[in-house]
Amino acid sequence: MEYKVLNSIKSPDDVKKLSNDDTNVLCDEIRNKIIDVVSKNGGHLASSLGTVELTVALHRVFSSPKDAIIFDVGHQSYAHKLLTGRLDRFDTLRQEGGISGFMRPDESEHDPFVTGHSSNSISAAYGISKAKTLTGTGGKAIAVIGDGAMTGGMAYEALNNAGAKKGNFIVVINDNKMSISRNVGAMPRAFTKMRNQSGYHKLKFIISNILLKIPLIGKPLHNFIYLIKESLKSLVYKNNFFAGLGFNYLGPVNGHDVKAMEQLLNIAKSYNRPTIVHVVTTKGKGYLHAENKPKDYHGVSSFDVEKGKDKSKMKTYSDVVGETLCQLATKNKKVCAITAAMTEGTGLNVFAAKYRPRFFDVGIAEQHAVTFAAGLATGGMVPYFAVYSTFLQRGYDQVLHDAAIANVPIKLLVDRAGIVGDDGESHQGVFDVAYLSTIPNVNIYSPCYYDELKRSIIDTANKKELSVIRYPRGVENKNFDGEISGDYTVLSQNSKKVIVTYGRIFANAVEAQKSLDNVDLIKLNKIYPIANELVELLLKYDEIYFFEEGILSGGIGEHIAAQLYKKDFKGKYNVNAINNEFIGASTIESALKKYHLDSESMIEIVGK
Amino acid sequence: MEYKVLNSIKSPDDVKKLSNDDTNVLCDEIRNKIIDVVSKNGGHLASSLGTVELTVALHRVFSSPKDAIIFDVGHQSYAHKLLTGRLDRFDTLRQEGGISGFMRPDESEHDPFVTGHSSNSISAAYGISKAKTLTGTGGKAIAVIGDGAMTGGMAYEALNNAGAKKGNFIVVINDNKMSISRNVGAMPRAFTKMRNQSGYHKLKFIISNILLKIPLIGKPLHNFIYLIKESLKSLVYKNNFFAGLGFNYLGPVNGHDVKAMEQLLNIAKSYNRPTIVHVVTTKGKGYLHAENKPKDYHGVSSFDVEKGKDKSKMKTYSDVVGETLCQLATKNKKVCAITAAMTEGTGLNVFAAKYRPRFFDVGIAEQHAVTFAAGLATGGMVPYFAVYSTFLQRGYDQVLHDAAIANVPIKLLVDRAGIVGDDGESHQGVFDVAYLSTIPNVNIYSPCYYDELKRSIIDTANKKELSVIRYPRGVENKNFDGEISGDYTVLSQNSKKVIVTYGRIFANAVEAQKSLDNVDLIKLNKIYPIANELVELLLKYDEIYFFEEGILSGGIGEHIAAQLYKKDFKGKYNVNAINNEFIGASTIESALKKYHLDSESMIEIVGK
Repeated sequence: MEYKVLNSIKSPDDVKKLSNDDTNVLCDEIRNKIIDVVSKNGGHLASSLGTVELTVALHRVFSSPKDAIIFDVGHQSYAHKLLTGRLDRFDTLRQEGGISGFMRPDESEHDPFVTGHSSNSISAAYGISKAKTLTGTGGKAIAVIGDGAMTGGMAYEALNNAGAKKGNFIVVINDNKMSISRNVGAMPRAFTKMRNQSGYHKLKFIISNILLKIPLIGKPLHNFIYLIKESLKSLVYKNNFFAGLGFNYLGPVNGHDVKAMEQLLNIAKSYNRPTIVHVVTTKGKGYLHAENKPKDYHGVSSFDVEKGKDKSKMKTYSDVVGETLCQLATKNKKVCAITAAMTEGTGLNVFAAKYRPRFFDVGIAEQHAVTFAAGLATGGMVPYFAVYSTFLQRGYDQVLHDAAIANVPIKLLVDRAGIVGDDGESHQGVFDVAYLSTIPNVNIYSPCYYDELKRSIIDTANKKELSVIRYPRGVENKNFDGEISGDYTVLSQNSKKVIVTYGRIFANAVEAQKSLDNVDLIKLNKIYPIANELVELLLKYDEIYFFEEGILSGGIGEHIAAQLYKKDFKGKYNVNAINNEFIGASTIESALKKYHLDSESMIEIVGK
Repeated sequence: MEYKVLNSIKSPDDVKKLSNDDTNVLCDEIRNKIIDVVSKNGGHLASSLGTVELTVALHRVFSSPKDAIIFDVGHQSYAHKLLTGRLDRFDTLRQEGGISGFMRPDESEHDPFVTGHSSNSISAAYGISKAKTLTGTGGKAIAVIGDGAMTGGMAYEALNNAGAKKGNFIVVINDNKMSISRNVGAMPRAFTKMRNQSGYHKLKFIISNILLKIPLIGKPLHNFIYLIKESLKSLVYKNNFFAGLGFNYLGPVNGHDVKAMEQLLNIAKSYNRPTIVHVVTTKGKGYLHAENKPKDYHGVSSFDVEKGKDKSKMKTYSDVVGETLCQLATKNKKVCAITAAMTEGTGLNVFAAKYRPRFFDVGIAEQHAVTFAAGLATGGMVPYFAVYSTFLQRGYDQVLHDAAIANVPIKLLVDRAGIVGDDGESHQGVFDVAYLSTIPNVNIYSPCYYDELKRSIIDTANKKELSVIRYPRGVENKNFDGEISGDYTVLSQNSKKVIVTYGRIFANAVEAQKSLDNVDLIKLNKIYPIANELVELLLKYDEIYFFEEGILSGGIGEHIAAQLYKKDFKGKYNVNAINNEFIGASTIESALKKYHLDSESMIEIVGK
């Protein structure tokens, strides 16, 4: 497609030069380009479409990279990428070697910080702004953060630290009236209150009647602007939540009106105090399917632009989790389910509808989620917290301190465990086994097939133990019909060689065993703690090949190594895991191959 | 000492029966008992003294354990322990096998939750209150949380989740006008504002003139109380921070006036909505030395009750860190220091005074601290975040996501690494090596002596790498005069046996080597990543004995095991580390002995 205006934007400076009409055309073109590429490559559509005008307004007022603009949860940053020299490569969005779906400093000087996980932008921007002051390099730091991300505790830690101080520091709150799932908690209600306050309308009046008529640049007008600023301040600097934290507060302003946002952003720019600009946007703006069902268009696979997303889809591991929890909940009134703003992603929709009093969406708040679960368990309930592996990293201390020390029997359902594919470095679920197995009293299960996943969930319900059940993104590859049961399963061929593995890649090992001449295969389900019995069994072999879809350092392969030396095992022990590096975007298949975890690599390694 | 009233309290029920006079005597006696025991055993004095009346009021209004009372950062809980059947054993406070310095569920049914780390009580209490509702067991859940702990993000995640819902759930904010260090951030300013608001005085008037004259129990008065409640509500339920989050708000009330607190707590008890009770206390109350210098009496060693704390003390690892950072900061204008409310504990007092613009106390907010540091580094500064090992657990995701992915060169100074002694399970620094070494791009140093610590800090300043330098609590045991340099040091006796170790216990290994016939000793300073060169060196030995003051699972001992198998090492490899369990309170010496990390154990193991 030809993009008349967009094609002319070589750097953010070009955005500043556009006429009002061309600015509007630019917004349309950005939107079309995003829909076009995401419909082919998949990606985060609804939030990206919601921030088109905001991004254009930011680049008209500020000068990246001198001003550092950080989009929290970088999937709001597609328009930013298009305006900062990455239009040519945008077709490679979320593909191996292509443009990342999130902000990435190694991709562009206009991406100052990694923002794959939510709620970190205020801390980062505050740090950058302090560095600017201390080094005297000048410029502002701007965090753009959604109202959903504002339910994350670290955003609040940052606001608390930054408030009521001097600083060249602006927080733009992109209030799209929902986080990923339906928005939850008190914070969103506070936003609603602010949106509804009369000041909004008064402010709009002032903006259209006074501010729009004067240019906001040039020294002669400085004093006049200062006066307006002060009166605006008294109007909008109300006793709201942010003012309480010591921030200047401007807004709310229509997040699809570039001119109106420019005005407020220019005022914010003129302050030398931390300032909140409250922008109200519509998630999915400009693409009707997404506007109507923004949840369905949060993170999407490829789809037909005319028809919208195909509703029919294959059953996933997450779906099996949701079904199993519903079954459990029917029989056992103590079973609860918790999500951190990921009801759909973790497959809990049906549970949420059917067992509302026992369903808790706590917001993007993994720390609280773990400890809240521990509180429920302390009170006698059986809580399951379903969470993506990468996001549970936020709850490490809570698992250790609030659950493990007192052996509180919470259940963690760790979704997207292992390699996740297109989302890249910041979303890989390859650390959970390593970090969770540093914690005493933790029991970790890593089933391969749906049946085993279901059984593991049901089995843990009545166990008075802290259980972790981890499973991959996507659908099972059911290529084995034999019985899988207990903590581990041995598929013996009376060999002196053995492949040991767990999780999804057992399916690859099954293929490998078929192709190899004579090799045993051990499939672990309970992967931690390492069972003595298992170690004894391994001692009988001459050669042990361990395959692990997880980080090497601190993984099960290493735990077993230490046990083998303890028992004086003198045979060959070969560990294949992810070699202590971050994994970029790629297909899951390609990444598994890279780390020798596909069946072909297994055959080659074991067959040597 | 004889405690007339305190000795008569066998359970919290007995507290309810006391006359006003006896209640006052009880408070004095509790205070004396706490001062007496802490002066002998050490402990958390100032915060414990501040909450005596509050604890008595709570036990007069609520019925533990039916009502679950959770003291955030359990070192506020000494009075609670004395009132819940633990007076007899209180002399064993913080000793091996004795009463814990924090809440511990395995110690008493009156301690519902582990609270060694800050800011978790609201999540836990909300979970317990939901469980009470769902199981129909009745009772309230009450979180008692200091204003300092309110700077921790997870407290806010919990408030956001719990606000504006029904629930038998009360948060008592113990506003002592400081966290551990001088209080920082916007939140404390909000408290000051609330304290100063006129409602305080009006409320006091209403309480003394109306409420004190009616009993708050009995059905006939229910309607009357309801009316008062409602008028109170309209008076105090102002547009403050907490009301904005959807909580009922009561207070502030004098936290050393038992009667006044009882009134408010009874009102809170009658609500079926989440309610905040804002209590103003004086840290160190009743012990003049502590009232005057509460920071000095936060966590103390034994001291003379008459004279107060002895100021002279030996130089600690933390002091060396503070000195070294000051030296660095003089020469290098980019060096910054960050603390999470632990300026004194981490030895940063002098830096804070001398380099104020480059010193940041961010509050009890480890997540933000790490990401803020990453922001500073992104902007070109050289930030050192000094933090206790156990508290850095809160920042695991931030180290991984916000620093390691983009290889942002922040420096983490991990204090109290290893066994910490009296504070027990929740404060042990034995996990950091394991959890940090799961993260790619992290470099970990573990010096033994002050010289080496100093050198490590200076060396990392100019390295463009994410560096972690960890060091123990307390003072060095300088028992070796030879040269220690580089990433590791070999003390060779041309033996085929070698002891390998790092950190403080190298001093024990030096002793062991002296006593043993013929054994080499390798001292690691850079412990992660595992250097290839080191592995090659180890291959030359027949027997390798690895000693690690850290958790076995995921520790350096295991990482090396995997490397040795990779290189086909067929000798003996023996790892001695902390055997995957939590470590209770004890002396450091006793714990080291238990895990075979003292010199005698080393001699026995290696000499066999």
